[in-house]
Amino acid sequence: MGNYRIILQYEGTKYQGWQRQDSTENTIQGKLERLLTKMCGEQVEIQGSGRTDAGVHAYGQVANFHCNTKLSCEEILEYMNQYLPEDIGVILVEQVSERFHSRLNAKGKVYRYRVMTGNIPHLFERRWVYEHPEKLDVEAMKAAAKLLLGTHDFKAFTSAKRGKKSTVRTIEAIEIGQNGDEICFTYRGDGFLYHMVRILTGTLLEVGEGKRAAQDIPEILESKNREKAGFLAPAKGLALMEVFY
Amino acid sequence: MGNYRIILQYEGTKYQGWQRQDSTENTIQGKLERLLTKMCGEQVEIQGSGRTDAGVHAYGQVANFHCNTKLSCEEILEYMNQYLPEDIGVILVEQVSERFHSRLNAKGKVYRYRVMTGNIPHLFERRWVYEHPEKLDVEAMKAAAKLLLGTHDFKAFTSAKRGKKSTVRTIEAIEIGQNGDEICFTYRGDGFLYHMVRILTGTLLEVGEGKRAAQDIPEILESKNREKAGFLAPAKGLALMEVFY
Repeated sequence: MGNYRIILQYEGTKYQGWQRQDSTENTIQGKLERLLTKMCGEQVEIQGSGRTDAGVHAYGQVANFHCNTKLSCEEILEYMNQYLPEDIGVILVEQVSERFHSRLNAKGKVYRYRVMTGNIPHLFERRWVYEHPEKLDVEAMKAAAKLLLGTHDFKAFTSAKRGKKSTVRTIEAIEIGQNGDEICFTYRGDGFLYHMVRILTGTLLEVGEGKRAAQDIPEILESKNREKAGFLAPAKGLALMEVFY
Repeated sequence: MGNYRIILQYEGTKYQGWQRQDSTENTIQGKLERLLTKMCGEQVEIQGSGRTDAGVHAYGQVANFHCNTKLSCEEILEYMNQYLPEDIGVILVEQVSERFHSRLNAKGKVYRYRVMTGNIPHLFERRWVYEHPEKLDVEAMKAAAKLLLGTHDFKAFTSAKRGKKSTVRTIEAIEIGQNGDEICFTYRGDGFLYHMVRILTGTLLEVGEGKRAAQDIPEILESKNREKAGFLAPAKGLALMEVFY
């Protein structure tokens, strides 16, 4: 029984997110499991490093699955890419220790959120950027981002319902880059709560629009109240870039 | 009566090319003319700098049209982008001299052809690159490209049927850039014949594959025979980048 680690990419536009659901066929996990089950001739379950929401993209999602197969890693990669839909692609397959678990062993993740400003359409990027015509105050957003760094209870920045799980996370870095009309937010942290990157981005965008001050961030964190934070930025601008182990 | 010059972009995937046709609605020119006719309340014809084939993209197509409107250039741009489909976008509208003609006044054009090598899918680029898994000899392709520069009769490099029009053109530059798995061909010239960039690329790719020698180029040019040149590279890898006046 081999344990295989894969790195995959997907354009999330057409999917209801990563996680397999009972009622629907249209999830990344579901697509992969049906394919691997066919490939191996036995029921295969695949574990992702984390869920991505409906419409969110991935450049470097990591997943693992256990199965019996005579295929080499190269052959598994070819098989998967041959039969997967064109908006899901596998870029690496490797055999790993029996104990490797893509979610439990993940030490950190990088997400990127892309925003296009201005009133000129961004045709070739439209599927993976959020178009926000109004100008944004990048320096104010950078000042606000600094106040989000470090270890905090991010309860105000998640849509997750009340639960027993910890909402404390550490954000190691938030880079805000500007290139022409594009503003690109890169988040690196030990883990992110449900909707957290999109709410962080929505809050920073509201700072950039002048609707909030950078100095309001500590108060939002302390409130632990979702209503104090900014709007949920649209899924299409978000992509999971990398998972660290 | 104003004469308006526009710069536009399109993802050619879903279209039967630039040129309006009688039998079909699905051309870029047709879409633009229907919209402008509605905007102006009178029949408007739009003239492109040149036709692009079905499936070919544009980052900087130039076109012009004459019409009577009280709208400012900024308002025309907004109107067009509001009603055009999401795979066609206008990035500039300006009023120009009555005599400006986007095709007759064009002095040169830049086309780009993108090729992705390797057996890893290029998910986010798949709509505008040609996937060619086998490795290519870039140095050999550069040597062949050099022999195409300058003024030649490119009759062997067009699918146009026998006609009276000159097939002499000048290619000012062919750059072949490599970035990871991507090989990018950039062509700059005073004008390109029907299918010319795609046949040039197909011929260079065959040199890169070792199926032809760079030194065969002069012979192909001299033959003026389409059958001596390489294959017609797929439309999806090609984009019109810029038109010079």
